[in-house]
Parts: sequence; C-alpha cells; structure tokens
Amino acid sequence: VTDVGSVKAPLAETLPGLLPPRVAYVGSHPMAGSHERGAEHARPDLFVGAVCIVAETVGAPPGAVERVEGFWRSLGARTVRRDPAAHDREVAWMSHVPHAVAFAFARALGEAPEGARELAGPGFRDFTRIARSDPELWAEILIANGKAVAGPIARVAERLAELARTLEAGDADTAVRLLGEARASLDRADDISPDPGAKTRKSGRKAREETENNA
Amino acid sequence: VTDVGSVKAPLAETLPGLLPPRVAYVGSHPMAGSHERGAEHARPDLFVGAVCIVAETVGAPPGAVERVEGFWRSLGARTVRRDPAAHDREVAWMSHVPHAVAFAFARALGEAPEGARELAGPGFRDFTRIARSDPELWAEILIANGKAVAGPIARVAERLAELARTLEAGDADTAVRLLGEARASLDRADDISPDPGAKTRKSGRKAREETENNA
Repeated sequence: VTDVGSVKAPLAETLPGLLPPRVAYVGSHPMAGSHERGAEHARPDLFVGAVCIVAETVGAPPGAVERVEGFWRSLGARTVRRDPAAHDREVAWMSHVPHAVAFAFARALGEAPEGARELAGPGFRDFTRIARSDPELWAEILIANGKAVAGPIARVAERLAELARTLEAGDADTAVRLLGEARASLDRADDISPDPGAKTRKSGRKAREETENNA
Repeated sequence: VTDVGSVKAPLAETLPGLLPPRVAYVGSHPMAGSHERGAEHARPDLFVGAVCIVAETVGAPPGAVERVEGFWRSLGARTVRRDPAAHDREVAWMSHVPHAVAFAFARALGEAPEGARELAGPGFRDFTRIARSDPELWAEILIANGKAVAGPIARVAERLAELARTLEAGDADTAVRLLGEARASLDRADDISPDPGAKTRKSGRKAREETENNA
C-alpha cells in the first residue's frame, strides 16, 4: 500500500496496525503538480524528472520499498528515501512553510490600496502561485504537520524582522549581506537538486519560439 | 527624460530641478523581466501584455506623459498612470515586499536540514525565484523605498504570526478561513490584472507540446 499525501509520520504510525498480515505500507510523496486541481490539468509527463520521496516505514520489507520506488521510476521520477519523520521535517521547509508564507502575504495584501492589484507582474504571480492552492486541503496539511512547520515559520519571521530593521536603518552593507546569504542558500539547493523543468518553465515563450524555429 | 527604476518619488523630487529648461521628467516602470540579468536573457516580446506604470511628475507637461506612454504602448505594454508616491506605495506591495519576504525565507532556509534541499519541487522554485535576484540591486531598491515597504512587511509578519498560532492550536476552521481570505485576495488581483503570459508560463511543456502538434 502506498499514498501520495504531504505528511507521513501520522500515517506511518497508525496505518501498519490496520493492514492485513503481509500487506506493507510505504508512503510516497511526488514533488510535482501545481495549484490546479482536477483531471483537466493532468499531464502525461507530470512526474518526468520530478523528485519523489519514498517514506521507509519501520518494519516494511525492503522488497516493498523497492517496488514502490520502481513504480515512481517507471513514471520518470527520481526517487529519494526518507524515514517518515525526516520527510515531514524536510517537506515542511521545502513546501509547507513556503505555502504558509505565501498565504500570509496574500492575506496581508487585502490591506493594500485597491489600485495596487493592477500592477501585478510576473514576479508577483510566481511568488503567490502556491497561495492559489485549495484552502481546505492546505489547512489540513499545515495542521497535520503543525509540529514540523512551527519552527521554520518562527525562523522566517525572525529573518523578516531582521531585514525590516536593516532597511529601516538604511544599512545598505548589511542588506547586501543578508540578501546575498539568501541567494547563496538557493544556489546550494540548485546544486543539489537542479530544476528538471528549468528550460520550459523559466521562459515558456522562449521555449515555444525555439520549438517553432526547429519545427 | 524617462527611466525604468523601481522607486519613483526620490527621483521625481530631485530630477526636475537638475534638467535644462523645456526638458520634462516622466518616470516609467515596466512590470516585466525576471531575476536574470544581462543581454543574453533579452526577449523581443518582453513587454507584450505587461503593465507599465507611467509616473506623472508634478509639472510635467501632458504631452510629455503621452509621449512616454506611446513609447511603451508601441512595445506592446499596457500603461497605467500613477503619481510617484502612489507608485512607490503600490509597487511596495506588488513587488518590493514579495522580494523581501522571499529573501527572508531563503535566508531562513540556511537552517534547514541539508537533505531538505534535495526535495525542491516546482512550488518551491516559483516561490523563491525572485530571491534569486541580484542582492546589490535589491538592497538598493528596498532601502530606497524603505518608508513604503515597512508597513506592508509588518502586516505580513502579523498575518504569519496569526496563521502560526492557528496551526499550533490545530484550529482547522479558522485555518480554512484565513487561507480562503488569502486566495480571495489573489483572485481579486487576477480579475483586475489578468496574467498576459498565463498560457505559456503556467505550463511551459504543455504549451510546447501544443505548438509541436500544431506545427
């Protein structure tokens, strides 16, 4: 048995006791998809090049883990193994906290001057895209992983306060250092996990033009 | 004279006094481009469908404003007029604060478990893209617009703290309401300012496939 939920530890604790003998539970979590829901947004290549985390439940036979990995690889995904608690901690940083922060920003935007919304550009749209996700689904995910999410949210709040103080003081040297550290942290993520869709996603139009020229 | 800087009020205050007689200053700010720099990322259609704010400096003759608007329209942009102070307030919400928040998140990410970076998915990449912008340029922009940026950053911090408390309390109903309000705020932005590149940017691969099928 596998699943594609965003939080693993609670399931890994309860599910094995509920399964019939000789049926193993191994969680999966493909890092793919968008804020869109429904079959009309399906894509045959959704998992090609995507990372899929396979959660090794304690006591699951190695054969079951390999079978689940094989399934995701057959769809083109790159699998990585994590124990369920590590999955929840790491996904908090890479998915849940970004969603929480994007939702918090979008809600604050309710207080912006009405005319501001007319000025949305591509940076705004990319930054807020994940806050267009389904509110009920995401409330559930964020609460289910509340323990792992709380610490990182507090860290982001501290970093934001630090940046705000620096800007208020007009301290350009410190501001450059803080933003430089932020960027270095992302560069490290790129080194470890290069974006499989970089070419098409970064410049959809350009990619299309190139295709047109080649066609 | 025009410019494409991200902050308008300081320039609108100083520049007109420095210009020769009969030369007017009218600021421009096209909401287009990406975190990339350099001529190798140039695109002939960069401004097609993009919003370009034209800052009406006090005392600039109407003809000068229209001439600047005409220039941007000839590149395919949709122009909107703002006075320089309104520009700075509104762009703080739509561009500067998102950058500050994305930078703060990326810097906090320095404390994530090293393995987390291996799990980057498309949501993470879109959310953090603007934090890959040039640190020196952005330190300058954020400090130059420090006054307009401070309030919205404080509001985002409050909204984030509110969400964190709700998640900690496991209050699902309130969480759904908060996230729903966030999403409604974005839906309003979409109504006012639809994404000109939605088709190509949202699903670069899909767009490319369609092109291939049509070619």
